[in-house]
Amino acid sequence: MRIVIIGTGNVATILGKRFLAADHEIVQVCGRNQLHAEELADALSASFTTGLQHVNSNADLYVLAVSDTAVAAVASQLQLNNKLVVHTAGAVSKNVLSACSKNYGVLYPLQSLRSELNELPDIPFLVDGNTEDDLALITEFASSISNQVQQAGDEERLKLHIAAVMVSNFTNHLYALAKAYCLQEHVDFNMLLPLITSVAERLHDYEPAAVQTGPAVRNDEATIQKHLALLQPHPALQSLYYMFTESIKKMHKQ
Amino acid sequence: MRIVIIGTGNVATILGKRFLAADHEIVQVCGRNQLHAEELADALSASFTTGLQHVNSNADLYVLAVSDTAVAAVASQLQLNNKLVVHTAGAVSKNVLSACSKNYGVLYPLQSLRSELNELPDIPFLVDGNTEDDLALITEFASSISNQVQQAGDEERLKLHIAAVMVSNFTNHLYALAKAYCLQEHVDFNMLLPLITSVAERLHDYEPAAVQTGPAVRNDEATIQKHLALLQPHPALQSLYYMFTESIKKMHKQ
Repeated sequence: MRIVIIGTGNVATILGKRFLAADHEIVQVCGRNQLHAEELADALSASFTTGLQHVNSNADLYVLAVSDTAVAAVASQLQLNNKLVVHTAGAVSKNVLSACSKNYGVLYPLQSLRSELNELPDIPFLVDGNTEDDLALITEFASSISNQVQQAGDEERLKLHIAAVMVSNFTNHLYALAKAYCLQEHVDFNMLLPLITSVAERLHDYEPAAVQTGPAVRNDEATIQKHLALLQPHPALQSLYYMFTESIKKMHKQ
Repeated sequence: MRIVIIGTGNVATILGKRFLAADHEIVQVCGRNQLHAEELADALSASFTTGLQHVNSNADLYVLAVSDTAVAAVASQLQLNNKLVVHTAGAVSKNVLSACSKNYGVLYPLQSLRSELNELPDIPFLVDGNTEDDLALITEFASSISNQVQQAGDEERLKLHIAAVMVSNFTNHLYALAKAYCLQEHVDFNMLLPLITSVAERLHDYEPAAVQTGPAVRNDEATIQKHLALLQPHPALQSLYYMFTESIKKMHKQ
């Protein structure tokens, strides 16, 4: 496909590379910031523009990879003559794209995408389309860049987005909090990396609830009290510890 | 080393296999439940006993792999004639072992160990010893079964134990909560596995705080409100979502 990418952030950058790697052609990158637009266009062997009014009108697919809050505003400024247009947002209805074309849908990457990451991770996609033809086209396109593609309407996508926030954004924040704690307490966070990897990896084979370990699921009150006491100088961690302990006990109560 | 393992649970089972794989000899398994003791002894080519008074007195190392709450009671019932004895608990002082021998220490596996897991994960060990000689012996033994061994006193071990609970028990509980939510809402949890893996794996190369993604770090209030509204029928998840969102905003406020 000949593709125009609108946006220059993490999602635009990583999806652009993925499109290129699957032999699609990026004809143009559009971004407000000239430097960012030029840099991404260079990386993708594309031309660039900083104005939505100058978007190339001869592409097959327009990908709005802008922040969720900007999708509607950008769509309202585009006239794409019924060209196929998708956004990449988890929590935005596909219908906001009706402002710019009759043919639209969603190409939502269910991944945590940061442009500084060197390796391209596996990216499952949730796709949607305004018509059956649009949905078929978007599904086919997504399948050319990923072997995990599922069709999902606005509400289903929003639900998986919530679950994704829980299992990635919240866990990543737990890692960040634990790392800050280790730094403050002068213990080596890196010793935890094999543990972190194995807890994530075993999800491929086991139910998470069935392989829960730790003092809360064992009802080991002595350990829990020692931990809470040692967390006294870290009140935010202490209340988080308390909340998780209660939640684990509740899920596993006999 | 010729080893006696006291305990038949997850830690006893997985460490026993690891000892055997590193060419140590398990001479005996001791457990209250005869069936469990016999099963584990069979798996480890060892004899078994159900009575602490019948523990073989001719081994080089005694490993108390019992629940954290039972370590002190078991130690008080053992007389090991100054043989080297270790416990495997994160939150128990090494000194409770002074009841059974003058030579004691800690061999704490910093992993989430469940005996049903087929693959033996990498296991970093935190070790401690009552004397310099004991510490040297335990460090050498730990190094024969793992290439990640660190010496750590009671307090340092307890601090890493807290961090381990946060990054493994709490994240695993987040996975369990998200899986239950996906089942209730009829969306496919398995679509989240690549996301979960990549968030854990990139910790080897990036600071977690520096690669935080999601609506909270973007200050995307519209998405946050949509998520909170959709979580209305799940009040426990809703308050957890709220707490994490506030904590992420706090860490990343400009």
